[in-house]
Amino acid sequence: MSRTIAVVAAGAMGAAVGARLAARGARVVTSLDGRSEASIVRARAAGMIGVGDAELAGAEIFLSIVPPDKAVGLATRMAAAIAAARTRPVYVDLNAVSPATAREVGAIVAAAGATFVDGGIFGAPPQREGKGPAFHLCGPVGDCAAILAGHGLDAKVLEGGVGAASALKMAYAGITKGLTALGAGMILAATRHGVGGALLDELGASQPELLARLAKGIPDMLPKAYRWVPEMREIAATIGEDRPESAVYTAMAEFYAAVAADHAGEERETALLMRFFAGRG
Amino acid sequence: MSRTIAVVAAGAMGAAVGARLAARGARVVTSLDGRSEASIVRARAAGMIGVGDAELAGAEIFLSIVPPDKAVGLATRMAAAIAAARTRPVYVDLNAVSPATAREVGAIVAAAGATFVDGGIFGAPPQREGKGPAFHLCGPVGDCAAILAGHGLDAKVLEGGVGAASALKMAYAGITKGLTALGAGMILAATRHGVGGALLDELGASQPELLARLAKGIPDMLPKAYRWVPEMREIAATIGEDRPESAVYTAMAEFYAAVAADHAGEERETALLMRFFAGRG
Repeated sequence: MSRTIAVVAAGAMGAAVGARLAARGARVVTSLDGRSEASIVRARAAGMIGVGDAELAGAEIFLSIVPPDKAVGLATRMAAAIAAARTRPVYVDLNAVSPATAREVGAIVAAAGATFVDGGIFGAPPQREGKGPAFHLCGPVGDCAAILAGHGLDAKVLEGGVGAASALKMAYAGITKGLTALGAGMILAATRHGVGGALLDELGASQPELLARLAKGIPDMLPKAYRWVPEMREIAATIGEDRPESAVYTAMAEFYAAVAADHAGEERETALLMRFFAGRG
Repeated sequence: MSRTIAVVAAGAMGAAVGARLAARGARVVTSLDGRSEASIVRARAAGMIGVGDAELAGAEIFLSIVPPDKAVGLATRMAAAIAAARTRPVYVDLNAVSPATAREVGAIVAAAGATFVDGGIFGAPPQREGKGPAFHLCGPVGDCAAILAGHGLDAKVLEGGVGAASALKMAYAGITKGLTALGAGMILAATRHGVGGALLDELGASQPELLARLAKGIPDMLPKAYRWVPEMREIAATIGEDRPESAVYTAMAEFYAAVAADHAGEERETALLMRFFAGRG
């Protein structure tokens, strides 16, 4: 009999993970109540089955894949259903949250009776073929990593207790998503000073790898900037407020909020960024 | 007769630029009064001649290559000698300063009678062989770029008035030196959370180019961090205080100040960073 794995929510990452698990034989359940039409379409295309919270809580493994500022809310919402379930899931928080937030999630679901595993996803959503992103899991992982690996995910056990996978994810994202913020901010500054084209030329001449990364990373970021706002705050919390570099990420959260507002609104800076990579900066 | 070019100061970049100009036949003068023994040794090895300010001001071209927070001070110091000189130099500010600071320097030396050219250096100091870094010059460049190019520097004219080269330099450094700050900050955070080794492994697996850049860039940065403090502040000023991403660089200035203090003192974090790249993070 196939294993039941819950994946909440059916966003771009969640649906891609669900599709991979379903393609490898799992029964993949998710929550579609109140979700956007896009999520419902994505979930169906992925072979994910919409069910209620009671059935979600009865899954063998529950994968939480939501924006960072929704991680605690999902755990809180699921707690009652988990407490009422006949079998308790392994609740895996795969979100881009600080170790402290991961521990907060863990305390909520553990109090409801679930086993809590801290996790992080490293890389872009899995495609139909190929290895896909790395899943690092820590805490009382048991056979959870083996089950996920058996269903086509590149899941590994990370040494260290709850919080280690979250810390690793934050450090990684602080570099990769932080670099995207630096690139976008400096392209906008150069453009305002009339040297956008010169910056494109100089990066192309002396930093071709960085330019290639920004040329992909910045357009990809624009529709996701709103999610990166809470992620930057979680990175700041991971660093700790007592350290000066924490404020780097607090400021990046504000920057991504401005980018997200522009992308959802006038698209003035969105257009400047896209023009830059079209060589018309 | 060979042309006289002043290069102040004989730091790592200034001495390397001076060596290139001298090797290509220029008479290169500099200021050695009150300089460190290291600078004096570097200047002599580069074939640079120590002279007084009056003679510096009589050079055909005066290249200002100092830490960002010394650019205005050098211009102020040179103004009287420039005003008293029989021939007025082209004063080229090649420092990592904001357009506003470049204009401030320009106002000082122009009031003394010099022609002011704004410039920026992109890349590492020139070596004995090879093309070396790019020099972008803007404003009333005249034949200055051609003279420098004729003496072995990769000098180019950048369109735009005074401030364009500084803005370009700031945008470029905001990405490259900003990335070094992100990498160092997140390596330290990962190490504190016990996942330094895992971060090294994950970057190696999925971001090998970034890891290679950080493995060179972070150790190279440590002895220069003190200079990057004012440079980050100039980048913040280039962005403008009204924008949230300006605070990213204000915070990076504080971070580099902490790194510089550690490097000059206890070397605790210096050691953590070096251990990381030795695979013992």
